[in-house]
Amino acid sequence: MFDKICIIGCGLIGSSILRGAEEKKIAKRISVHDKSKQVMEYLKKNFTADICPNISEATKNADLIVISAPLSSYKEILLSIKSNLKEGSILTDTGSAKKEVNKIVNNLGIKNISWIASHPIAGTEHSGPAAGFSSLFKNRWCILSAQDQVTREKLEKLKKFWSKLGSKIKIMSFEDHDYVLSLTSHLPHAVAYSIVRTAINNGDKFRNDIIQYSAGGLRDFTRIAASDPLMWKDIFFDNSENILKVLDNYSKNLDEIKSAIKSKDSKKLLEIFSSTKKVRKEIIEAGQDTEKPDFGRK
Amino acid sequence: MFDKICIIGCGLIGSSILRGAEEKKIAKRISVHDKSKQVMEYLKKNFTADICPNISEATKNADLIVISAPLSSYKEILLSIKSNLKEGSILTDTGSAKKEVNKIVNNLGIKNISWIASHPIAGTEHSGPAAGFSSLFKNRWCILSAQDQVTREKLEKLKKFWSKLGSKIKIMSFEDHDYVLSLTSHLPHAVAYSIVRTAINNGDKFRNDIIQYSAGGLRDFTRIAASDPLMWKDIFFDNSENILKVLDNYSKNLDEIKSAIKSKDSKKLLEIFSSTKKVRKEIIEAGQDTEKPDFGRK
Repeated sequence: MFDKICIIGCGLIGSSILRGAEEKKIAKRISVHDKSKQVMEYLKKNFTADICPNISEATKNADLIVISAPLSSYKEILLSIKSNLKEGSILTDTGSAKKEVNKIVNNLGIKNISWIASHPIAGTEHSGPAAGFSSLFKNRWCILSAQDQVTREKLEKLKKFWSKLGSKIKIMSFEDHDYVLSLTSHLPHAVAYSIVRTAINNGDKFRNDIIQYSAGGLRDFTRIAASDPLMWKDIFFDNSENILKVLDNYSKNLDEIKSAIKSKDSKKLLEIFSSTKKVRKEIIEAGQDTEKPDFGRK
Repeated sequence: MFDKICIIGCGLIGSSILRGAEEKKIAKRISVHDKSKQVMEYLKKNFTADICPNISEATKNADLIVISAPLSSYKEILLSIKSNLKEGSILTDTGSAKKEVNKIVNNLGIKNISWIASHPIAGTEHSGPAAGFSSLFKNRWCILSAQDQVTREKLEKLKKFWSKLGSKIKIMSFEDHDYVLSLTSHLPHAVAYSIVRTAINNGDKFRNDIIQYSAGGLRDFTRIAASDPLMWKDIFFDNSENILKVLDNYSKNLDEIKSAIKSKDSKKLLEIFSSTKKVRKEIIEAGQDTEKPDFGRK
C-alpha cells in the first residue's frame, strides 16, 4: 500500500499503528522515531522496524507520516521534518483536537504534501508502547479532516490505511470535529478528573473507605482519570474554546439538579434522570458499547 | 439458617437475593411481595417461593425481612407490616442511604425486633426482576449499620446471611455510610446524569455524531445515567445534605480546571491530572475493579 510509513511518537496509539501495520503488511518499510530514549530502547527490543534516533532520517522518503505525539510537540516535530518531506506524501496525525493543529500546519507553509488530520476514537487508560495492541482500532471510528485542496485520491489512500487497521471512517470538518469531541470526550475527561479529585481530597479519614466502596459508581470515573496527564493538558489547551463553553452548559445542568434537590422537586428530578436513560440504548444499538450489564465486568 | 425469609420489593436487588437464597438454601421458606402486578406475575412464572399479593401475609412468621424497594416507599411498607413482625426477627433493607431510613424506623416505634440496615454495593444499570442474578453480590462489599441496642448475635446472623450470598461485610455508622457513599456513588450519579444531559441537549444537528463517537469517554457515563430514575430520585432526597455539600466541593474542583484552562496554566493542569492517576491503581489493588484495559470491553 505504501513503500514507507514513518511513525513519529510511539506510545499507546503509535505502537498500536506499528503493530497493526506490521501485521497487515501495509508498508514495505516502517520507520519509527520517539524522543524518549526509554521508548526507543523498548522499540529496538520488540520490533523489526527501522528505529531511528534521528527524526529527519526517519521521515526521509516516507509516503505516509503519522504524528502520534502530544499536541504541544507538533510544532517542534513539524519544524524538524519540514524540509525532509517527500513530494506527494501524506502527512497525518492521531491527535484529539484539530483546529489549532491545522493552523500550525498552515502557518508553517508546508507544501507539496497532503495534510489530512486523523483521529482514531480508540484508546485505553494505559499509556506507552507496551500498552499498544494491533486490534486497538478494530471496529472503532476514525475521523478524518482535510482541507479543500486535498485530492480525493490522497483521501482514499488514507481511508484505506485506517480501514486496513480495522477502523470505520468518517469525514468531518476541523471545526465540527472539535465541537463534537468536546462533548463526547473532552468534557467527560474534565468531569472524571474533577470527581476523582473531589473524592480523594477529603483528608485521610475516609480514604480507605472511598477506595473500598468505589464500585457504587466512582470506579468507572477513575479509569478515565488515569489517562495520560500531558496528553490531556494539551487537548484542553488546544480545544479550550469549545471545552469552556460545554463546561458552562454542564455546570448549568448540574445546578438544575442541585436546585431540584434543594426544593425537593420530585417531578423535575425524575424528568432529568429519565431523559438520559435512552441514550445508553442508542449507543449500544450504534455498536459503540457492550450491551452486557456493568460493561461485562466480573 | 432461617426458617423463613421475606423479601419485600423484588427488582434487580430483591430478585438477586431471592435467587441467591434459593441457590444456597439459606431458608426453609421464602416469601416475596412486590407492589407491581407485572413483577408479581413474573415471579409466579419463574420462582417456587411464596409469591404473596398481601404484604402482611408475606411478613407473617418471617425471621428475616429484607426491604428492597425505593426509599420513598419504606414508610408505607413499614406501616403495613409493623403489627405483623415476629418477635426476635431481624428487619433489614438494601437501600443506598441510611440516616433518614433509620429515623423512619425509630419514629414508628417498631419494637421487639432487630433493625440492621444493609447496603450491598452491587448492581448493574438494569432494573427489574429479570435483570437479577444470584452471583450479583459475589466478592462485593455489603455495609451494615446498626444501633447500639442490637445484639452481637443478631448482627452475626445477618453478616452470615450476606456472606452466604457472597458478600464481604463492613460495619459502619449510619452517618459515615451516608457521607462515604455520597462521594463514591451519589456524586458519580449526579455527574453522570448531568454530563449525558449536556451532551444530548444540543439540538439534533450533532446528536447522531455524539452517539457514534461516544467511545472517547461519554459512553462510560451513559451506563450510570441509565440507572433507575425513581430509585435515584429517592437517594438524592434522602441524602441531600451530604450530596449538596460534595456537589459544592466538586464544582470548586471543576472551577479550578476551568481557571487553569483559561489562564493556560500548564503546571496547575498537569498537577490536577496527575493527582488522580494513582487512585485507579489503588482501586484495582483493592479488588474493586478489573485491571484489564477499558474494563475488558471488546
